[in-house]
Amino acid sequence: MRILVTGAAGMVGRKLVERLVRDGRLRGQKITAFDLHDIVPATAPEAAGVDVTVHASDLAREGVADSLVASKPDVVFHLAGVVSGEAEANFDLGYRVNLDGTRALFDAVRLAGYGPRVVFTSSIAVFGAPFPDVIPDEFHPTPLTSYGTQKLMGEALLADYTRRGFFDGIGIRLPTINVRPGKPNKAASGFFSSIIREPLAGQEAVLPVPRSVVHTHASPRSAVNFLVHAAEIDGEAVGPRRNLTMPGVGVSVGEQIKALRRVAGEAAVRLIREEPDETIWAIVKNWPTRFEAKRSRELGFKAEETFDDIIRVHIEDEMAGVLPP
Amino acid sequence: MRILVTGAAGMVGRKLVERLVRDGRLRGQKITAFDLHDIVPATAPEAAGVDVTVHASDLAREGVADSLVASKPDVVFHLAGVVSGEAEANFDLGYRVNLDGTRALFDAVRLAGYGPRVVFTSSIAVFGAPFPDVIPDEFHPTPLTSYGTQKLMGEALLADYTRRGFFDGIGIRLPTINVRPGKPNKAASGFFSSIIREPLAGQEAVLPVPRSVVHTHASPRSAVNFLVHAAEIDGEAVGPRRNLTMPGVGVSVGEQIKALRRVAGEAAVRLIREEPDETIWAIVKNWPTRFEAKRSRELGFKAEETFDDIIRVHIEDEMAGVLPP
Repeated sequence: MRILVTGAAGMVGRKLVERLVRDGRLRGQKITAFDLHDIVPATAPEAAGVDVTVHASDLAREGVADSLVASKPDVVFHLAGVVSGEAEANFDLGYRVNLDGTRALFDAVRLAGYGPRVVFTSSIAVFGAPFPDVIPDEFHPTPLTSYGTQKLMGEALLADYTRRGFFDGIGIRLPTINVRPGKPNKAASGFFSSIIREPLAGQEAVLPVPRSVVHTHASPRSAVNFLVHAAEIDGEAVGPRRNLTMPGVGVSVGEQIKALRRVAGEAAVRLIREEPDETIWAIVKNWPTRFEAKRSRELGFKAEETFDDIIRVHIEDEMAGVLPP
Repeated sequence: MRILVTGAAGMVGRKLVERLVRDGRLRGQKITAFDLHDIVPATAPEAAGVDVTVHASDLAREGVADSLVASKPDVVFHLAGVVSGEAEANFDLGYRVNLDGTRALFDAVRLAGYGPRVVFTSSIAVFGAPFPDVIPDEFHPTPLTSYGTQKLMGEALLADYTRRGFFDGIGIRLPTINVRPGKPNKAASGFFSSIIREPLAGQEAVLPVPRSVVHTHASPRSAVNFLVHAAEIDGEAVGPRRNLTMPGVGVSVGEQIKALRRVAGEAAVRLIREEPDETIWAIVKNWPTRFEAKRSRELGFKAEETFDDIIRVHIEDEMAGVLPP
């Protein structure tokens, strides 16, 4: 079992590789080799007896995708991409990496002619307002960002390449990943994590939107579970509709804060400072709120049941299970 | 008012140009020039005082799209494309023309930097079975052909390029155009037209599918009406969801035949020979049946009300209003 991960230096990529090394197996087979690709060198995991090759290169550059699949990986996890804010700020870069890079990788797999499982991380950014209260699986994607557009185009390619038998693709639309470990960043969605992460670490956090804002979340651990399940699932059972909205916990910011109080107490909640930001609000109010995610749940994808669980996963996975005194 | 039409040598392209020449105006302005593009030379219309340039070239070839928009056409009708059957039979050609050609044109308009109206013909092929009885505007596109995939990707680009202000795009999803003039062709959908066109001309036609098959139709005249309306409509009124399912007449093959009887009599109907074809049936049974097309109707797009009207349009426009004795 040889595995290629693009975007392996990213947060989800790193956690996926750690998990796969821990499991040692995928699809019932022993993992013998990793190809870890990113624009910067990914950290090679310590894994005795497993051959790890680190590729630092630009996926959209001529020949790069071909070189990545030359070793015929049995499973390709395609996580690489320019994030939403960057794809919006830099039009050419976004299309080049997210569309051309994805197409180059899919074409390289097609031309290699051996039909592996390809797992593609799409995003709920394929959806654009207005929405019904709960977005059903059959709701049309009308992205309101270039990032969402590029993900939608990748989904379309994935489904067609799968239908034509070039590979066996599964696209997973990730909800907002929460709690993101690390430092606060400038993403418009950053506050969803920082209002939990910073107070848990005894630091202040800013809440720029009303507490009534509803959004769907899953932990980084769930994101990795989705990826592994997408790699292992029976393609026949999925049928021709290969792009699946993942499950998640749909809660308001107010409910996130109540969960924080239950898990970490009032002192943590007091570290959240409300500071309305019209710019962030203008972006966030067009984001999808809740998803039905009926198909993905039926196909065995699982997220946390409550936001309390999402907080507990963060404490377990990122804080060694211990809250600071 | 300068107008660029790609795919100008095709059936709809020719009729569009004839109509525009007849009207002499578009968006309230006098038409002064046409750029007519196709892979083969389009017929230049006779239009006194109108400058007509015929471009025969491959839209996906480097530099071609730039040369087409060099004259800064005020309205771009992008009809060019490889048809469904060909895009399925020839994977590379379909993606090259339908995706790369469309993107090249859109990028040329973007880089020209003057923001014209762009009308793009998409197709109900963006939808794939299974469907509800009537497909609502918010139903998700899950194409089951490479052609439908390429059209969906073009739609996504159109919406994003419009959102970013590169141009003012309208995508129209055409239903099956019926009655197609000319000779029978080998398209799987060909029988929808031939069971009307051939009997009207006193010739036999083959019906390869059950009479219960339901499908949505609009006349070539309506297709041209859609295009002209899409060129003239107020973009603000359309909002960010720029791809619209056109209205049409949703009828069963049995109802098509009853309409033929009403318009042309029993003798015409007797010329239809039922000859089931499993291959055609396997394709047709995955096609969408009826559409709600609520938004497009509200935005003023109009098709025929009955299949009788569709037949009458054919007699008027293609048979000089006269049935053979």
